[in-house]
Amino acid sequence: VACAIRLDLAYEGTAYRGFGRQPGLCTVQGVLERELSRLLGHPVHLTAAGRTDAGVHARGQVVSFETTATLPAARIARALRSRLPDDVLALRSAAAAPGFDARRHARSRHYRYTIWRGAQPDLLWRRFSWPVAGPLDEHAMQVASDALLGRHDFSSFIGHAAQQPARATSMRTVSRAQWWREDDLLHFDCQADGFARHMVRNIVGTLVEVGRRKRRPGQIGQLMASADRRLAGPTAPARGLTLMRVAYGPALDESNDDRESGT
Amino acid sequence: VACAIRLDLAYEGTAYRGFGRQPGLCTVQGVLERELSRLLGHPVHLTAAGRTDAGVHARGQVVSFETTATLPAARIARALRSRLPDDVLALRSAAAAPGFDARRHARSRHYRYTIWRGAQPDLLWRRFSWPVAGPLDEHAMQVASDALLGRHDFSSFIGHAAQQPARATSMRTVSRAQWWREDDLLHFDCQADGFARHMVRNIVGTLVEVGRRKRRPGQIGQLMASADRRLAGPTAPARGLTLMRVAYGPALDESNDDRESGT
Repeated sequence: VACAIRLDLAYEGTAYRGFGRQPGLCTVQGVLERELSRLLGHPVHLTAAGRTDAGVHARGQVVSFETTATLPAARIARALRSRLPDDVLALRSAAAAPGFDARRHARSRHYRYTIWRGAQPDLLWRRFSWPVAGPLDEHAMQVASDALLGRHDFSSFIGHAAQQPARATSMRTVSRAQWWREDDLLHFDCQADGFARHMVRNIVGTLVEVGRRKRRPGQIGQLMASADRRLAGPTAPARGLTLMRVAYGPALDESNDDRESGT
Repeated sequence: VACAIRLDLAYEGTAYRGFGRQPGLCTVQGVLERELSRLLGHPVHLTAAGRTDAGVHARGQVVSFETTATLPAARIARALRSRLPDDVLALRSAAAAPGFDARRHARSRHYRYTIWRGAQPDLLWRRFSWPVAGPLDEHAMQVASDALLGRHDFSSFIGHAAQQPARATSMRTVSRAQWWREDDLLHFDCQADGFARHMVRNIVGTLVEVGRRKRRPGQIGQLMASADRRLAGPTAPARGLTLMRVAYGPALDESNDDRESGT
């Protein structure tokens, strides 16, 4: 009998051409499916809560798959650890409700974008942050971010339709858009029911222009109303972005409690 | 006229076969001398305060060299930045007193060893820490470390004479040997007038055995008196070790002030 499994992951995206499988390219999904298939003795096809782009990291990615293997569900993560490269960490595995789908059942995703504000580049954070020099008006950036909250058409931050899946909608509900400082780090926490490709990075690129006073904070509302990608700012680099956490409904969420504390 | 230059560096040692130049191998010195020679237009031979081993990192390495180039001394670091790989950071450069030698004139070196104590491996710290699982008696580790303070023969932590330079002495004066916690990180700060090869890592390997109650803290004094490497513990992994800072005498130290804040 096939059993549904939920697997929680962290990874450094630097060395990967993104999460999603691509023939002949090194992707997180490609590595995971190969090693899960070897471990479980049958082909594994997994579904991920967030298909992160090349260079984007994760601390709380969730994937689901089915297995007929007899290995206890909770042991899969540990058995996988020694097989995975050291930039992909299997945090935990558990049996999930029948039919559990990490992508379709996710209620919200929380991404964090990190900007490095130190005078010197940093050894530890250089792969996980975008260094931005010069003055930044962080208050203006927060005021502009407040306009993102709620349900909106995010077309102006989503890029060309050709890069998006067919029939994709650009309506999203943002429930958190918060800038905060941690010493030399400037973090942007963004949570929504879902994100389109490059959406967080385009938002951050635009908000940094607000911080540099190239745009007024009040322009963000107009920008969203325009639904015109050409009016927004540039795409911020991938390395500053991390998928922090995926939330599920109450029935599916029990194994999600200690996500962020773990990494 | 040849001018003495002091250059301060940070680097991630993961990809290098150590600091010191070795023909045909990728070393930090090899990369630096190649790029400095190209930048300055003449062969550059540098001297480093600490010849870190393969996989060991630095946040405050200091090197010295002479140049006849007309580029202002303070500009060398910036000009070097775009030429160096992204795991070697040129922090700052300055004109030094004539004859300045980063190695011979150093009064003390400060190394930090970092142990990861989190339940899960960590994405950010995995290259800069040694994960140690299970209980550790940190108080006993500190008591044992106190025995290191002062002037001693460190032969029992230094390894085979064949690995050391000819006529090297094993006498060192340790001025700091402090364990401290930062959330899931357990740091060991060790400062001395100098360190022999593997000395910090052998001390840490032995102190972790104290933490695991395989050794009593009081044995460290006897161990040093024995001057027998075979009685000490194993060598802790390189990736947990970072050269934090090198201190010079008052006349040479002026450019050393903001070392640790910068990285």
